[in-house]
Amino acid sequence: MKVGIIGATGYTGGELLRLLVQHPKVEVTCVTSEQSAGESLITRQPFLNKHYDLVLETLDPEKIKKKVDFVFVALSHTTAMKPVYQFLKNKIKVVDLSADYRLKSKTIYQRWYGIKHLYPTLLRKSVYGLPELYRKKISTAHLIANPGCFPTGALLPMIPFLQKGLVDETREMIIDAKSGASGAGRTPGIRTHFPEANEGMMAYNIGTHRHLPEINQEIIKTGKIKIKTIFTPYLLPINRGILTTIYLPLNKKQSIKQLQSIFGVYKDEPFIRIIADAPNLSQIKGTNYCDIGLFLAPSGRTAILISAIDNLVKGAAGQAIQNMNIMMRWEETLGLSNPGLFP
Amino acid sequence: MKVGIIGATGYTGGELLRLLVQHPKVEVTCVTSEQSAGESLITRQPFLNKHYDLVLETLDPEKIKKKVDFVFVALSHTTAMKPVYQFLKNKIKVVDLSADYRLKSKTIYQRWYGIKHLYPTLLRKSVYGLPELYRKKISTAHLIANPGCFPTGALLPMIPFLQKGLVDETREMIIDAKSGASGAGRTPGIRTHFPEANEGMMAYNIGTHRHLPEINQEIIKTGKIKIKTIFTPYLLPINRGILTTIYLPLNKKQSIKQLQSIFGVYKDEPFIRIIADAPNLSQIKGTNYCDIGLFLAPSGRTAILISAIDNLVKGAAGQAIQNMNIMMRWEETLGLSNPGLFP
Amino acid sequence: MKVGIIGATGYTGGELLRLLVQHPKVEVTCVTSEQSAGESLITRQPFLNKHYDLVLETLDPEKIKKKVDFVFVALSHTTAMKPVYQFLKNKIKVVDLSADYRLKSKTIYQRWYGIKHLYPTLLRKSVYGLPELYRKKISTAHLIANPGCFPTGALLPMIPFLQKGLVDETREMIIDAKSGASGAGRTPGIRTHFPEANEGMMAYNIGTHRHLPEINQEIIKTGKIKIKTIFTPYLLPINRGILTTIYLPLNKKQSIKQLQSIFGVYKDEPFIRIIADAPNLSQIKGTNYCDIGLFLAPSGRTAILISAIDNLVKGAAGQAIQNMNIMMRWEETLGLSNPGLFP
Amino acid sequence: MKVGIIGATGYTGGELLRLLVQHPKVEVTCVTSEQSAGESLITRQPFLNKHYDLVLETLDPEKIKKKVDFVFVALSHTTAMKPVYQFLKNKIKVVDLSADYRLKSKTIYQRWYGIKHLYPTLLRKSVYGLPELYRKKISTAHLIANPGCFPTGALLPMIPFLQKGLVDETREMIIDAKSGASGAGRTPGIRTHFPEANEGMMAYNIGTHRHLPEINQEIIKTGKIKIKTIFTPYLLPINRGILTTIYLPLNKKQSIKQLQSIFGVYKDEPFIRIIADAPNLSQIKGTNYCDIGLFLAPSGRTAILISAIDNLVKGAAGQAIQNMNIMMRWEETLGLSNPGLFP
Repeated sequence: MKVGIIGATGYTGGELLRLLVQHPKVEVTCVTSEQSAGESLITRQPFLNKHYDLVLETLDPEKIKKKVDFVFVALSHTTAMKPVYQFLKNKIKVVDLSADYRLKSKTIYQRWYGIKHLYPTLLRKSVYGLPELYRKKISTAHLIANPGCFPTGALLPMIPFLQKGLVDETREMIIDAKSGASGAGRTPGIRTHFPEANEGMMAYNIGTHRHLPEINQEIIKTGKIKIKTIFTPYLLPINRGILTTIYLPLNKKQSIKQLQSIFGVYKDEPFIRIIADAPNLSQIKGTNYCDIGLFLAPSGRTAILISAIDNLVKGAAGQAIQNMNIMMRWEETLGLSNPGLFP
Repeated sequence: MKVGIIGATGYTGGELLRLLVQHPKVEVTCVTSEQSAGESLITRQPFLNKHYDLVLETLDPEKIKKKVDFVFVALSHTTAMKPVYQFLKNKIKVVDLSADYRLKSKTIYQRWYGIKHLYPTLLRKSVYGLPELYRKKISTAHLIANPGCFPTGALLPMIPFLQKGLVDETREMIIDAKSGASGAGRTPGIRTHFPEANEGMMAYNIGTHRHLPEINQEIIKTGKIKIKTIFTPYLLPINRGILTTIYLPLNKKQSIKQLQSIFGVYKDEPFIRIIADAPNLSQIKGTNYCDIGLFLAPSGRTAILISAIDNLVKGAAGQAIQNMNIMMRWEETLGLSNPGLFP
Repeated sequence: MKVGIIGATGYTGGELLRLLVQHPKVEVTCVTSEQSAGESLITRQPFLNKHYDLVLETLDPEKIKKKVDFVFVALSHTTAMKPVYQFLKNKIKVVDLSADYRLKSKTIYQRWYGIKHLYPTLLRKSVYGLPELYRKKISTAHLIANPGCFPTGALLPMIPFLQKGLVDETREMIIDAKSGASGAGRTPGIRTHFPEANEGMMAYNIGTHRHLPEINQEIIKTGKIKIKTIFTPYLLPINRGILTTIYLPLNKKQSIKQLQSIFGVYKDEPFIRIIADAPNLSQIKGTNYCDIGLFLAPSGRTAILISAIDNLVKGAAGQAIQNMNIMMRWEETLGLSNPGLFP
Repeated sequence: MKVGIIGATGYTGGELLRLLVQHPKVEVTCVTSEQSAGESLITRQPFLNKHYDLVLETLDPEKIKKKVDFVFVALSHTTAMKPVYQFLKNKIKVVDLSADYRLKSKTIYQRWYGIKHLYPTLLRKSVYGLPELYRKKISTAHLIANPGCFPTGALLPMIPFLQKGLVDETREMIIDAKSGASGAGRTPGIRTHFPEANEGMMAYNIGTHRHLPEINQEIIKTGKIKIKTIFTPYLLPINRGILTTIYLPLNKKQSIKQLQSIFGVYKDEPFIRIIADAPNLSQIKGTNYCDIGLFLAPSGRTAILISAIDNLVKGAAGQAIQNMNIMMRWEETLGLSNPGLFP
């Protein structure tokens, strides 16, 4: 299958290209960049030297539709909206890695992203690409809204509790999520300037991060509850990875054994690893895994769930490929079956 | 004043020595190390080259008492207990940086440290050296139990709420605390082996960390409440600093302005900085400051308090010197008034 | 083909296992560890969770020979010597990643490794596994002495000059080589204790590093010259990678164009990338590539050659698999064709 | 003495402010920033919170001359030239931390910095502020051109050899210098974007770095020789520090003892530490020290000299204050006598 990467010079685009080298059924035939059109892909992604021999082109859906059967859109929020629509109109299936088709409510979209959504009909048709939750819908979708990195790390551990009605909605749920610096993208800025970020750590956008409405949307849909969520994201001085700790209020006392059995629902999931110890970001680098560790407050009324994902893989490019595999009815793990890099 | 550093080859001992160079009223006349007795201090702490010309000696209180008026004991837990007693018997004032005299209950001590406490009388007489809480008692004490690094970062933001009776003891308090690697001490181990720790992050000792009973003891004493505490410590791939986020249940709805006014109690504290933004570990390296940022959940019923300290300074050596200054009725900031290192 | 990993709990063993997951012709049937025999491989290499279901066993060549056709020996120096011999005696081909069969002279071996070599005949038969230099010999070998990480990074850029007789042996050659911390192995020690190594950098073993005689042996063999070599290794605060700068004395004035054409010899090498810019360690992580950048002193008489390799891949496990592929007459890039991880 | 910091929001400006807190004879009365004029200094340098209560102002020499007796100019190259001239005209002594008055030849300045020098007379009068070389001239100077960070690390180890005529000018001298990221300044860029720099290392500007003519100027002046210099700078993934290895050609065979005795010339230097081992960047952070280690090639004809400095202290702000102390006939170590931060 011929695949295009729309926005190939950022970290997410690079990660898609890295993973697709290993994919047996896909050939990348088109890579775009507005800034670097005309340059070789390798000048902007030198780590892919010897793996691709492509030239970056401008984003022209009319031209691109002739050379691709499928596209991954790795553009920034608000700029993805229109090209996604154009590709779909041209019968090209899309996995959109931006936030533009994730929030089902156009009102909420406008409130958090500051612009009016131009394609509310398409918004309703898009499928939120969390395979562990929506595998069936994904398999027939034409447009996947690939989940954000923080929502992926936060939702996966809590889904079993939401599905089984075990969450106490009268108390707040706390999500304390620590992210590596690649999550901020490839555009330099003061916060990710090396001497500022290195040997530092700080929370940011407390209560105002755009991934919060996305998390809430899925909690409500999956759990049929209206719980208050506190979401504290942090910037870590590492390249990749999100470590998320969820303090989950339980509506009845549980034992650690009961917690473990609740996660039985994930036993056939190819990319979930329930582990005995606390997850470590060093163990999932470059992989599509979500490692989950389960702990319990002495009260038995609050679960302490810790997840570790690679924000560029399960939090972005890997999950996007997993979604493509499902859409194409291929083996879900194609291109994603290699272990990560340790150390 | 002649001062001895009992245990001078670890990070805490080195930090005491670093800070005391800047102290106008103190001369270090004795440094000990069981492993390296007879060697020059500089062979084990080369960063102090040109600042000290001392030879490490064994810990012999009878001999040391002749050359010091005051000692800092920077030994590991359980090994500090006896020498502390001996120095006091010889009328030498002590700041003990170990945990041996922090827990007021010998039962709790034995449960968490695995050995029986030999000097329960002394335990009762020791003063917990958190100046913001016990300044007056410290000024007349002979033995200070210098607080642990996690308890310092956790207690300072919550003290004003405990003192004013604003904490809802029916809900759990969550302390999510991220520590740099120097907190693990100078003895190599697999968890702090560079390739294991670098580019990684993990929680450890969830619910079983020895700083938990210490935090609880002070919560109970200060707040006269019995709240359940969840304490999750993490290892960060940085050298220094603890970033602590406290999700504090409030017993009545508060505004962010009210939170800020509650912290008015700290307005004359020399080492507390209430800041407008979220604290960053990069801003307190090498200093005795505790930076505190205040946030509020939308419910108005949970405060999100974030503190940043340098675990080796306010979390250990700096606070120890602050305690000495108070004990000696000196200016409290002596030796501690320099800015930190940034970047 | 059934393969055994002798010494599977270190970084090199883990890296062999990581890469062999991707190898289409190999199944790992045996993993050993003296310390952890009886434990699951995953307890010691948790990043391989879901990829292997093996139990660590003790090193018993008589027992192992029944389940393997080929072994990689990833033991430390001096302890590999005997098992290598035993496997070969049992007709099992071996790639030895230790230094025990690299130095052709038993005298030099004894001088640098402090023990007498027990199998000098085997020493003579072993082939130094640098494919770019000895591909043909490797293809018929039974025992490969896999090159050290520093020698690999140092030799690859200089080989074309040695082969063409362009090196001025009257001047010294300088090799200034900076290595990530995984090169020191997985056993904790003070030098690689996180707070000691992080934010630091130092040279070590100047003039006394054991990779020096190995480099010299190959220079002499390949260049038929007796040049004096200065080798300065450093420890870097990163996980993977060796950046080697070689100041190579030329016996006649060259232009940068001439330098480039000299490297034409590498144009079909699958794992050499001659690049236009200076190599960056961030671009080769997890790969078997050796990136080489070419610069020239204004005099035109000294070439400045910079190479970047991943010490665990081209400097160890990857090159070992490359050697196996050659020995088995398979496609040389099997299991090694994925791009690296960036960022 | 009232002091102004011209350019107070970068790393060098921040470092001057950090060190001057500790200076007993200086009060900072003016801080400038074109971008942030009108803002509090603390908004741009939050680590100095509680240490300064100053507002940033624009650079207006006529206005500033009334509130200062002395200025440090921490502007970027070419923009410092004019204000330096203006301050001097107004009888304000200046230490200029930019490169604008370092190169004695206006022709060479123009070739390397791309603009014509407007004040060639002043250029001749300025004194190159390396106290170990020009202490006497500094003591009577009105304008100090504070040395670059790389030249400081490179020159200090070679000066004794240059002064004693021990350098073989027929061979090339190699300077292989590894710098932390703060050396690149505080303006974000792709090369110092955290995920690009972290876990990476690369050489840059080989043969074209602007510190090369500065190094050569001092070699020629001090050694009266015309040696060819190869200078390879690198970017390291650490915050502070330059580790410089110099391969110095000797014109006669030396022993390591002779090397050591050559460095006797530095025995009274307050900021030079000749150490027995290889210098480590972790040991000089935050200090004005230059640690130097001495090694010898087996030939005895090439010295391997390794220096470690903090690029922001001895490589910039610390040396600037040392120069001020000399100009004012104060104790040379004022404000610079504290140990560094380790770990």
